[in-house]
This record gives sequence, structure tokens and C-alpha cells, in this order.
Amino acid sequence: MSTPQLKTIAFDADDTLWRNEDLFHSSQDYFVQMLEKYHSKEYILEHLNSIQIANLSNFGYGIKGFTLSMIETAISLTEGRITGYEIHEIITLAKQMVASPVELLPGVEELLQSLQGRCQLMVITKGDLLDQEGKLARSGLAQYFDLYEVVSNKKESNYQRLFERLQLKPSETLMIGNSLRSDILPVLNVGGHALHIPYHTTWSHEQVTQAELDAYQPIATVRSAEDVLSWLDAHFSM
Amino acid sequence: MSTPQLKTIAFDADDTLWRNEDLFHSSQDYFVQMLEKYHSKEYILEHLNSIQIANLSNFGYGIKGFTLSMIETAISLTEGRITGYEIHEIITLAKQMVASPVELLPGVEELLQSLQGRCQLMVITKGDLLDQEGKLARSGLAQYFDLYEVVSNKKESNYQRLFERLQLKPSETLMIGNSLRSDILPVLNVGGHALHIPYHTTWSHEQVTQAELDAYQPIATVRSAEDVLSWLDAHFSM
Repeated sequence: MSTPQLKTIAFDADDTLWRNEDLFHSSQDYFVQMLEKYHSKEYILEHLNSIQIANLSNFGYGIKGFTLSMIETAISLTEGRITGYEIHEIITLAKQMVASPVELLPGVEELLQSLQGRCQLMVITKGDLLDQEGKLARSGLAQYFDLYEVVSNKKESNYQRLFERLQLKPSETLMIGNSLRSDILPVLNVGGHALHIPYHTTWSHEQVTQAELDAYQPIATVRSAEDVLSWLDAHFSM
Repeated sequence: MSTPQLKTIAFDADDTLWRNEDLFHSSQDYFVQMLEKYHSKEYILEHLNSIQIANLSNFGYGIKGFTLSMIETAISLTEGRITGYEIHEIITLAKQMVASPVELLPGVEELLQSLQGRCQLMVITKGDLLDQEGKLARSGLAQYFDLYEVVSNKKESNYQRLFERLQLKPSETLMIGNSLRSDILPVLNVGGHALHIPYHTTWSHEQVTQAELDAYQPIATVRSAEDVLSWLDAHFSM
């Protein structure tokens, strides 16, 4: 039996090519410490999370939106008693996040080296344009990619528009990513291929329920970028 | 004499297709009022401007970066005495900016109607992805454009990469915009055509000196979008 032909492999960036969620977690930890004299950790995180989600439509994904949500949460949870100096610390935290080094995930660079020249390689990442361009530059991976697309969201319609604009046939395109919600299900829904590499932590907003998953064939999954090449060779020709 | 053939017209968005700088100005006015009990208007604006420029590399262009700079300025100018409630007002201002209606500039929609089908039409805009996509959607102009590109900066290298990626020949491409610094000079430098439509107000960071301009042939300029079509017909075939 012949295997389907693959022309393009698109990678999610955050928590697929490099660590990202950890950075938000450690900023969150710092933020919690700052407010722990007012409230419990659980209460602070719950409040921050709901303000973040409410702010997504205003501020989108990324460090700046996250920072504005931290500031808003701090003001709300302290009933305005938070000081200017403390808020300034949050802004300093944001600047550190923007400039923090990019740590690649195991096997990523080797995988890209092996794939380069065999098919078109691209990144499809959600978030803030400046944040994402900065991370690509600092990652040292830019040389491997033919295309780097930053989108404001990763819904079916975003993939559909992007595939049309770039004239990619879904049947010849594979998306690899850590988020079932953003990288896998919408791509399958528009007729593309998808490979899931779970990350050890997923933002609650990105999680999907088992009931949602039941509507799909078992999702193709590997443990890390180190296992992608053998999976590809078993399922596709390039 | 035959006129050069034009295949693509790219428009800047903010202050070329729709009003934008005014929105930042009115938020700034509000911000100044808030701090006027501490300092003079001139001192506040000078400080805000320098913090904004220092923050460009961290936070880029757009509403979120502007908001974080306003918050940082407020803390710094009040030596931390600004209250949580006042900072919350700045965040509320940001949310209002994000959702504010988009006011088209005179003649823009008529111009796009006349050009549609005659050449490829695109937008090249600098700034925050979410802000810019939101404005395009609210503007009602999305239907006229074949391509909508949000870039993190508008230097020569950004245009060069974009033209290559989209396979646009500079000699067949015209950029129309209000900023000499961002829309006109870098495009001329990479061999493209450019048409300047000045806007009544330009952020100081975008201004160029006469000495810089002296290195160029007189820059093609019209007063408003209403005059573009006759200028085009006199200079290009499409």
C-alpha cells in the first residue's frame, strides 16, 4: 500500500519547538508571592485565570496581554491597595520575559536538520507578533523554515484562510503541535494531517475534554520530537 | 513615452486608510489630566514619549505596548504614589481603544472600489497583530484586499523579505502611506514606488529631517486618497 505524499510540515512554536509555558508559570509564581499577603495561592490563580480569559478578546495571547491581566488582577484582588512600586515589578517581570533565553525542546534541531530539503517547513504560531519573532530569532531555528506565520488565533477558519493563501493542500500538509485545541483538532477538521506531541503542562484554556476527543479517530501522538522522524517514515512519503 | 506597469498597490493602514493617531492623542490627553496634579503637561508628555521609545524593543507598536508605557510613566512620575484605581483607569482606557470604532479617511473606500480588479491590493501595516486585524474587520474594508500583512517593523529589510516571500517585483509595486520614515523611504530604497499622503499629525518617532529627505528625488505626494486615482493614471499603467 502506498503512503500519502507530504509536501509541507508546519510546526507550532511554543511548547512544541521550545519551552514557553514554564516561563509564564514562573512569572505566575512570582506574582502569587507578591499577593500572598492578601489571598491564598488558589484564589489568586483562579482570579488571574478568569481575568486572562476575559481579556483575550481585548488583548490576545502573549506577554503584553498577560502582563495587563496580572496588573488588573493585582488591583482587583487588593481592592486598589497594591502600590505603584509593586505594579512596576510586574512590568519589570514582563521585560524579563520578553528577553528571556529560548530553550529548545529535545530533538527539535536534529529533526529540522533531517527534514530540511525533504519538504517545505513552516511555523504556524499564535500570539503576539513581536514576541514570536523575537523567540524565533533567539532560538537559532529561523534558518530551517521556509515560512513563519504568526496568527491571532488557531481556529478552523484561521487554518483554512492560511492554507488557501499559501496554496497548501490539506491532504499534503501535516501540523505538529502540543495543543489538541489549537494545533490538532482544527487541522483535522479542515482535512489536514496532525501529530500531537504532548507537553508536560497545558494552559487550562487550551484543554479539551474526553467527550470532544471521542468524535475523532485516535489522535496520532509521539512522546517527543526525537520520535517524529520514524513516525513520519512509517506514515508518509516525502 | 510609455508609463511603467503596476501590478500591486500596498497601503499602510493607520492614518492612511483610517484615523489612528487621534485615538492615541485623546488617550494621552486623558492620561495627562490624570497626572496634572503632579506635573506639567509638557513634562508628562516628554516622559511618556521617552518611556515609549525605550519600550519599543520590548513591547513594540500598538495599544498594549502604549498602555504598559503609560502605566510605567504614571508610576515613575508619581514616585509610586499613583493608586491602583488610577492604574485601573488606564487599563480601562486600553480596552476602550481596542474596541473603538474605525473612522475611514475621506475617499479611501471609493479609491479601493475603483482599484479593485485592476491590480493586486494589499495592506502592509506595522503593529500589534490583534489590534490590526480587529481594525481591518471593523473598517469594513477587508473585502477589497487580496493580502493583509502585519509586520513588526517597516525597515528596508522587512520590505525586502516581504517582497521576496510574496514574489513582488519592487518595480511593479507601489506603497501608499502617511509616514515618510516607515512607508516611503524604505520602499524607495529597495527599488519600489511610493506615494506619500501626509496626515495632520505624525508621532515624533516617525518624523524625518530635511537633511534625510535631501538624499531623495522629490517625494511623490498627494493631499488625500481622493487624489490618488488621477495621480496613478498620470504615472502608471495598470
